[in-house]
Amino acid sequence: MIMQTVAQGGKMINKYALKHRPISNMCFAYNEKEVEIRFQAKKDDLKKIELFYGDKYDFKALKTIEMEKIFSDFEFDYFVTRVSVEKNRLAYLFKLYDNKIVGYFTEWGYVKELDLLDEEIIQKYLMHYPYINKIDIHKVPDWVKGAVFYQIFPERFFNGNDLISPKNKVPWETEPTRENFFGGDLEGIYQKLDYLADLGINAIYMTPIFKATTNHKYDTIDYYEIDPHFGTKETLKKLVKKAHKLNIKIVLDSVFNHSGYMFDKFVDVKENGEKSRFKNWFYINEFPIDEKKLNYETFGFEPKMPKLNTSNPEVFNYLLKVAKYWIEETDIDGWRLDVANEIDHEFWRKFRKAVKSVKPDAYIVGEVWHNSNSWLQGDQFDSIMNYPIQTACYEYFAKERIDIETFKYKVNRTYFDYATQVSEVMMNLLDSHDTPRFITESKGDSKKLLMVFVFELFYIGCTSVYYGTEIGLTGKMDPECRRTMKWNKNDWDMELFNAYKKLIEISNEFDVIKNGEFRWLENKDILSFKRFNENEEIHIYINNCEKSIKINLNNMKEYRDLYASESIIKSGKLKLSPGEFKIIKII
Amino acid sequence: MIMQTVAQGGKMINKYALKHRPISNMCFAYNEKEVEIRFQAKKDDLKKIELFYGDKYDFKALKTIEMEKIFSDFEFDYFVTRVSVEKNRLAYLFKLYDNKIVGYFTEWGYVKELDLLDEEIIQKYLMHYPYINKIDIHKVPDWVKGAVFYQIFPERFFNGNDLISPKNKVPWETEPTRENFFGGDLEGIYQKLDYLADLGINAIYMTPIFKATTNHKYDTIDYYEIDPHFGTKETLKKLVKKAHKLNIKIVLDSVFNHSGYMFDKFVDVKENGEKSRFKNWFYINEFPIDEKKLNYETFGFEPKMPKLNTSNPEVFNYLLKVAKYWIEETDIDGWRLDVANEIDHEFWRKFRKAVKSVKPDAYIVGEVWHNSNSWLQGDQFDSIMNYPIQTACYEYFAKERIDIETFKYKVNRTYFDYATQVSEVMMNLLDSHDTPRFITESKGDSKKLLMVFVFELFYIGCTSVYYGTEIGLTGKMDPECRRTMKWNKNDWDMELFNAYKKLIEISNEFDVIKNGEFRWLENKDILSFKRFNENEEIHIYINNCEKSIKINLNNMKEYRDLYASESIIKSGKLKLSPGEFKIIKII
Repeated sequence: MIMQTVAQGGKMINKYALKHRPISNMCFAYNEKEVEIRFQAKKDDLKKIELFYGDKYDFKALKTIEMEKIFSDFEFDYFVTRVSVEKNRLAYLFKLYDNKIVGYFTEWGYVKELDLLDEEIIQKYLMHYPYINKIDIHKVPDWVKGAVFYQIFPERFFNGNDLISPKNKVPWETEPTRENFFGGDLEGIYQKLDYLADLGINAIYMTPIFKATTNHKYDTIDYYEIDPHFGTKETLKKLVKKAHKLNIKIVLDSVFNHSGYMFDKFVDVKENGEKSRFKNWFYINEFPIDEKKLNYETFGFEPKMPKLNTSNPEVFNYLLKVAKYWIEETDIDGWRLDVANEIDHEFWRKFRKAVKSVKPDAYIVGEVWHNSNSWLQGDQFDSIMNYPIQTACYEYFAKERIDIETFKYKVNRTYFDYATQVSEVMMNLLDSHDTPRFITESKGDSKKLLMVFVFELFYIGCTSVYYGTEIGLTGKMDPECRRTMKWNKNDWDMELFNAYKKLIEISNEFDVIKNGEFRWLENKDILSFKRFNENEEIHIYINNCEKSIKINLNNMKEYRDLYASESIIKSGKLKLSPGEFKIIKII
Repeated sequence: MIMQTVAQGGKMINKYALKHRPISNMCFAYNEKEVEIRFQAKKDDLKKIELFYGDKYDFKALKTIEMEKIFSDFEFDYFVTRVSVEKNRLAYLFKLYDNKIVGYFTEWGYVKELDLLDEEIIQKYLMHYPYINKIDIHKVPDWVKGAVFYQIFPERFFNGNDLISPKNKVPWETEPTRENFFGGDLEGIYQKLDYLADLGINAIYMTPIFKATTNHKYDTIDYYEIDPHFGTKETLKKLVKKAHKLNIKIVLDSVFNHSGYMFDKFVDVKENGEKSRFKNWFYINEFPIDEKKLNYETFGFEPKMPKLNTSNPEVFNYLLKVAKYWIEETDIDGWRLDVANEIDHEFWRKFRKAVKSVKPDAYIVGEVWHNSNSWLQGDQFDSIMNYPIQTACYEYFAKERIDIETFKYKVNRTYFDYATQVSEVMMNLLDSHDTPRFITESKGDSKKLLMVFVFELFYIGCTSVYYGTEIGLTGKMDPECRRTMKWNKNDWDMELFNAYKKLIEISNEFDVIKNGEFRWLENKDILSFKRFNENEEIHIYINNCEKSIKINLNNMKEYRDLYASESIIKSGKLKLSPGEFKIIKII
């Protein structure tokens, strides 16, 4: 009988809250040697959890290790440990403790009593990570860990070559509409690379640059040509080459879910209907194509964006060649995947193989706004854009709709949703071409912007800075968030800019920000956390409150304030005014 | 603020028990049109759950549908519904009801209040099944649904050609040891095909038949040759051909995790050490190979079974060719995968493509004893051998260690762990070459055996009958469970045999047993369930109690007893003695 509900004579525990699932985000190979195991229980319900584990064929050698409670929120405690097994085979179960043992969590869920000396019992109740096969481990590019990306919407960054600008372009700094053009181009980005290197960023992500009709270029006409208003392949090559010299990687945007309306294959289908040799490149329900009836599949309800049939070998081979071509031809360093979750998994598996075959450390990052585990098993994307954190940051810092506990809950949940290596290269973004700018949402409060930047920059993952955020560029939802970059320094928020530069410099200086572990620090009203490894430990404090808050530092240690000018802190107290943050390194 | 714990003024619900996860066993495309959505809550906590769903780009057209509570056990209620969306895109959340609405389950977990008219709110809280891409849907072979497999251990079934028997063979019906041989072979199976056709089975699964040294043949020497004691390719071809004429499919056992010790490539490594051109076919930690040090990876701790490096292209190409060769050469209908969960996922993805490319409806069934979701996403196996049900059946029917509720909990949990199409072709087994025979575990009680067979046969999935079970063959754990088949009818339990035949005949007669849905019937002490579709409904009652039990049938309908001779039942009462079962069709 395994269904007892209460530990006899002991405490009533909420067995419904106990959560674990083998071979999932709660049990995965972190590297070739270690498996990470996670467990979730009702907050404050258990005093301790131990993992009972070992080789699944050698029950006599099973060991016990205490798990670490790494997070808590309103509802749950989150426990984690990493273990290694000599023969690559792992079997395990959980021992649950109040003051004494109150049960076990097993292959068959919660069990009150279990004889761990009985091999038949053990065999039945152990869960399994059957074998660490190296080829299945989710490997991510090292250079992305802790990197600072700079996202550019090329039409609006800088006009470096007016000869190729659209004829109907409007003057720089005109208010953008959904239709107008300003003349930004790749030569412009090339010319501003020194600016970006000076800012300290490590990579650029550009929204699409292939031939298209719109200003955003998400309606590709030709996957093999740079948009003529943006430049040529030569411009891109020159840009990548100089960027690499400056230690800046370049990631492009791939729009493979749908083509543009003027893509030659779709034009052929429109013209020739059922007779078109490209009719199976799309999902056509009936001929002739009718935009009003929308008798073909599209992105959303947008007739101008016909969905590509990525399960058709002609189509996927075409797109895989595109993906490889731009890496081989221009040496770019990765792809951001537009509408990534509407394309089939089969395509992405082939895509990963193709991309990694020509550049093993290329970064593959999907645009997915919701739970993305099914793309993050190691066979498809490296990671995703972290929209849940973006939303949480807006709600906590800008709109003050959620409190600190809820914010941490959202951060924790997203962390817990994915394998650790996924989080290490997750793109933490704030502003983007698809969302209102934070400075506008926070009513111009640049203190808020700096606090949120400090959080994202020092939190686990890489960070994306949308062009202009660093100088205080404003804008509501698209089209406003796509205003032209300001190049006259008189228009900049210099205090903000210098702060961005200084913060990025700090994040680049310490390896622990790239490769260190993350833990929240125990402080009630202040957002505080540490990044640490065996050699270094950095503490971050962010006061997003309306009152000053005092922090007690451990008097036994010495600290260095990495951001402020007064360098060494010996006092055990630290006072943070509203809107203030501290980045403190233990000496 | 989304973290409220109690519905204000309403009932306290256990929010920790609420479980759902998008794109998982709780949200999957059942076919090209329908997505199945499941939800789990604490038993009796909620009176009703509604799914609020629709196109993720058209919030105005969202609809509400009530979910069906399909199972309950001690702890949980299980809710299910299937929905279709015109444009292949699905967004949804759950409305939770006691007498009135008590909250919502969303992308951000449990929320007490939600304004479903506010599009910004909806956008934030909806969960997504982003797109039904046909190529990603887990498709399974239709012929396996409800099929009856007959598992043969060829060395022990029938000796059809004594000329090729091992020289050291012992007389038929001698007590088996781990080492002895009896002379069973493929010719023997061929000669007994009429017996099997008469029994009514639909498919044969044979344990390995390729050249090997042991009697079980799990130590392959040559993947391209039939073991000379079993016959030749011609014998296998003849066997498959006749089987197909009798509408019997043939599934072979693939042992790809490890080779035998005498596999020529391993022999080469043993002989030539680091100089062997096959050294990367295995995982060798140091040269020379040392059996005692076990300085190479093996299956378990068995030095005679070196693990194959299935991530090495030479190796996987070799094995994929093997998989295709036997289908193309001999027309077999599928593969059972030995130690399936220790081989890398990448290999199984390639394997599925290879196998389905030569026979699209070939059956791929993995030997996995534990949670197997990561192999059952549509890109690897069709299904697995249902060991959890095997264990539950032993515990409930033979050993009486668990009660009816616990048995149902185990069945439900396994059902809920996988997509419905996986369950539809899951191999429900009882006896096997790796477990004691049920009749022995139940101390010779053939009533118990029949009850459990009725359960497995009429439950969702296919059923496996291990050779001899149908005549009462006994045996404890290996080697006893591998006794020779008895062919003298005087030694048979004829009552048992006739019951098996009759039951298989019934299961073959009604499509609803293959393609119908499954639900438990509400009866306290008796195991009862129905299989149904739009046209047919069959009820199964199994009395695994020590007392007689009366069942109330709905007086408004007429019933036919499919198993007993007295055919039509008009009375509203049905009495079942201990060990009795009924298979009743609503007329």
